[in-house]
Amino acid sequence: MTDQHPFDAAIQLSNDSEGIWSGHSSPAYANMVGAFGGIVAATLLNSVMLDTRRTGTPVSQTVNFCTGLGAGPFKIETKLQRAGKYTQHWNTELSQGDTMIATSSIVMGARGETFSHQPTPAPDVAPAADIAPMSGKLPLEWINRYDYRFVNGGIESIGIPKTPLGDSQTRVWIADNPPRPLDYLSLAALADCFFLRLLQIRGTMEPMGTVTLTTHFLATEEELTAQGSAHLLGIVDSNRMHNQFHDQTMQMFGTSGKILAAGTQLVWYRQ
Amino acid sequence: MTDQHPFDAAIQLSNDSEGIWSGHSSPAYANMVGAFGGIVAATLLNSVMLDTRRTGTPVSQTVNFCTGLGAGPFKIETKLQRAGKYTQHWNTELSQGDTMIATSSIVMGARGETFSHQPTPAPDVAPAADIAPMSGKLPLEWINRYDYRFVNGGIESIGIPKTPLGDSQTRVWIADNPPRPLDYLSLAALADCFFLRLLQIRGTMEPMGTVTLTTHFLATEEELTAQGSAHLLGIVDSNRMHNQFHDQTMQMFGTSGKILAAGTQLVWYRQ
Repeated sequence: MTDQHPFDAAIQLSNDSEGIWSGHSSPAYANMVGAFGGIVAATLLNSVMLDTRRTGTPVSQTVNFCTGLGAGPFKIETKLQRAGKYTQHWNTELSQGDTMIATSSIVMGARGETFSHQPTPAPDVAPAADIAPMSGKLPLEWINRYDYRFVNGGIESIGIPKTPLGDSQTRVWIADNPPRPLDYLSLAALADCFFLRLLQIRGTMEPMGTVTLTTHFLATEEELTAQGSAHLLGIVDSNRMHNQFHDQTMQMFGTSGKILAAGTQLVWYRQ
Repeated sequence: MTDQHPFDAAIQLSNDSEGIWSGHSSPAYANMVGAFGGIVAATLLNSVMLDTRRTGTPVSQTVNFCTGLGAGPFKIETKLQRAGKYTQHWNTELSQGDTMIATSSIVMGARGETFSHQPTPAPDVAPAADIAPMSGKLPLEWINRYDYRFVNGGIESIGIPKTPLGDSQTRVWIADNPPRPLDYLSLAALADCFFLRLLQIRGTMEPMGTVTLTTHFLATEEELTAQGSAHLLGIVDSNRMHNQFHDQTMQMFGTSGKILAAGTQLVWYRQ
């Protein structure tokens, strides 16, 4: 037994040779099929963070989920496509045997102190400490790895169709459970923690899954360190759901009111 | 001389072998350095659209801009990473000699008629026909390939610092110039047409450029055909600008009020 956080255990990699990594999927982050997408994103980001060629800190990641990550070992192959003065462009692939599980493009950036401006204000909501955690053991194991405190748009019941359709927006305080100091790796996973808007709007659990996830890391490393293990405020919404695909936008605010990350994902649904 | 639209000439590719394509950059879409990113995005998408292995229509594209596309020929290499019942995952790379210019992940989807809902309402603005086109020959050649009609947040002057800082949002009607019937290819380019928010907010032209661009195609092919060559209404904004990187969100509405595409990009700026 060690006191390693389950997140760190799940994203752990061993280096086989330059750009080749081995890992093992973790039951602690199991999803309905395969693993939670956020842990796949964080693991792919980790393969670049650990690389000795890496310079700068993450500014952007897109993950394409080809199929679910199964139980057992996996390989990651990384390629540094271009390294310039201000950015590094990486491509990564996660596979199990001959099956491509996920691919990801990752951009590292050299950040320097300069112009700063946040057009999007922090919403005025009750602090996480004043809101009860989402209760009850949920059927998806990975959800138990997070502490959800809904400001609005929480899951009231699953399986009862909403008439009229629900509001698409959710505002929720969220943190690793057990608490873990925030870094780019956990932020990459938190970006995928929000329940799919199709469920929020319809109230029923249709077959659905994230196809691609894009996260922009807008915070410096110092800001993440200052955030520590405090809850982040996430705001998620959708622009449109049409003929089996919908988008889902996301912003995550730190307790300072600064936006630490923002992004969007595309979700497939069957009906 | 032919009457081929400059857009179609610019994205034209010849097939060398399976997954290998050749093209030539077009001066009609020249940017300050290299080519307009939107034309790079459309060209990469075209390499998948033309592939005989392709099924479905585009649902998502992320383009990572490693460096500017120079004058002259280029190569594109495509790889079908995974093909399932509902989606195809592609990775593409555009290079000139030994230089990686841009990479892109592209998802194709099989769309069927099912649940449809648009949480984000179309804004109530004056139609494109009632707004004067942006006038004057601009220093960037590619901008002349588009017709801009600003509802709000237009470029008033370049080089005069705004005090206080400008509003981050722009709403603008936009179309190919000369007109061209809309398809996924031109939509991929239109997604990158919006002026960078740093310019809008500060009023000055600092060294800056898009690092990565993600577009979700939320419309069916029939909806794009119905839109024809009419102007799209784009709404762009930014969540945060901090220490040399800012994000830029985008939604594009058709004249029907339906959202045809939405996405986000990450922009680097020097100071």
